[in-house]
Amino acid sequence: MSAYTQTERTRVRRAHERGSYDKETVHAILDAGFVCHVGFAVEDQTYVIPTLYWREGERVMIHGSTASRMIRVLQAGADACLTVTHVDGLVLARSAFHHSANFRSVVILGKTHTIDDPAEKEHVLKNFVDGLYPGRWDGLRPMLDKEDKATTVLAFDLKEVSAKVRTGGPIDDEEDYALPIWAGTIPLTTTMGEVIPDERLIPGTPQPDYVPNGIPFLNK
Amino acid sequence: MSAYTQTERTRVRRAHERGSYDKETVHAILDAGFVCHVGFAVEDQTYVIPTLYWREGERVMIHGSTASRMIRVLQAGADACLTVTHVDGLVLARSAFHHSANFRSVVILGKTHTIDDPAEKEHVLKNFVDGLYPGRWDGLRPMLDKEDKATTVLAFDLKEVSAKVRTGGPIDDEEDYALPIWAGTIPLTTTMGEVIPDERLIPGTPQPDYVPNGIPFLNK
Repeated sequence: MSAYTQTERTRVRRAHERGSYDKETVHAILDAGFVCHVGFAVEDQTYVIPTLYWREGERVMIHGSTASRMIRVLQAGADACLTVTHVDGLVLARSAFHHSANFRSVVILGKTHTIDDPAEKEHVLKNFVDGLYPGRWDGLRPMLDKEDKATTVLAFDLKEVSAKVRTGGPIDDEEDYALPIWAGTIPLTTTMGEVIPDERLIPGTPQPDYVPNGIPFLNK
Repeated sequence: MSAYTQTERTRVRRAHERGSYDKETVHAILDAGFVCHVGFAVEDQTYVIPTLYWREGERVMIHGSTASRMIRVLQAGADACLTVTHVDGLVLARSAFHHSANFRSVVILGKTHTIDDPAEKEHVLKNFVDGLYPGRWDGLRPMLDKEDKATTVLAFDLKEVSAKVRTGGPIDDEEDYALPIWAGTIPLTTTMGEVIPDERLIPGTPQPDYVPNGIPFLNK
């Protein structure tokens, strides 16, 4: 698969050997999560807000209330940033300095564009729901006009984008390997707890197959 | 416990009933994690970078390479933002519109200041390590001068800060509760996998008590 063009703005600066512009790597990191952090500025103050996202080809989508400040600032053409991070473990080295964390992250730079076309908007919102819960959309109460009007969907194009990945155990100074200090890695994963059916569920409503199986990509 | 003073910049705008300025709430969210996202601007482009953090009283610390662009931009006085987010679950409602996620987040605004005093810097770095792994610092190979020189510690004061929390199940439109559509909550937690001792460990090096017990705050 091809790679994104590296720009001065997306060049991975620290530990650059961990950087990647490979499309497959970027897509896999994006597809392994659903919460991102979006950064934008208002009057020279930077804000970083967590929100949900989903990928469609070479675009990453977010949605929000039409009245949201973040949505309005992004629509006004802010030079924004969308970052996705998965923390895969803690790395304990023989010196404090070489302690680290294993992670996979993607940083996307750019302005957003609004998904205005009603059919396209419904299509991408369906993909959002079905991406988390395969097949759920068609069983839901259909979207109302006022809900459609209250919801804005924005897309970041995957153009200025970079990934950064750390894996593996500690990398100590050579002489420190002789020290009798415990070192190693504590893997971390996101796992599902026991599903909590809503207390007002109509008795006998079957739990869909996708719920016990959980979010399809978790722990992959 | 007291509360942070709400400012126009920290006013929680969307779903404001989920906002909080309570110190106890803010501290608990901060103390339940170790990865944050820091936002800052360079030439009008916002960047959001994941990094580790720890809290000491009314300050939240980050550290990085003295040569890091993020560190240098923050030291130059950027109006930055540090955001911490824990995702606690996915919430499935009877309409797409009311699907949601349970989360706890804290947003801190401000400029950083550098921990310059050598004794204070070593003290806070010790607290960072011992906060994750109680008692580990004193058993490590001591920090070298060159490591100290290569590391910058920055603090955000907890002044302009807000928390936002969503808990509980779906909140559907009243008439939708009559629909036979499955709804509920899928709890998500961060859990430890099996610890991986470093392959170059000196045989017989005992695994410290804090490792099998894991990160003390996880899943709390």
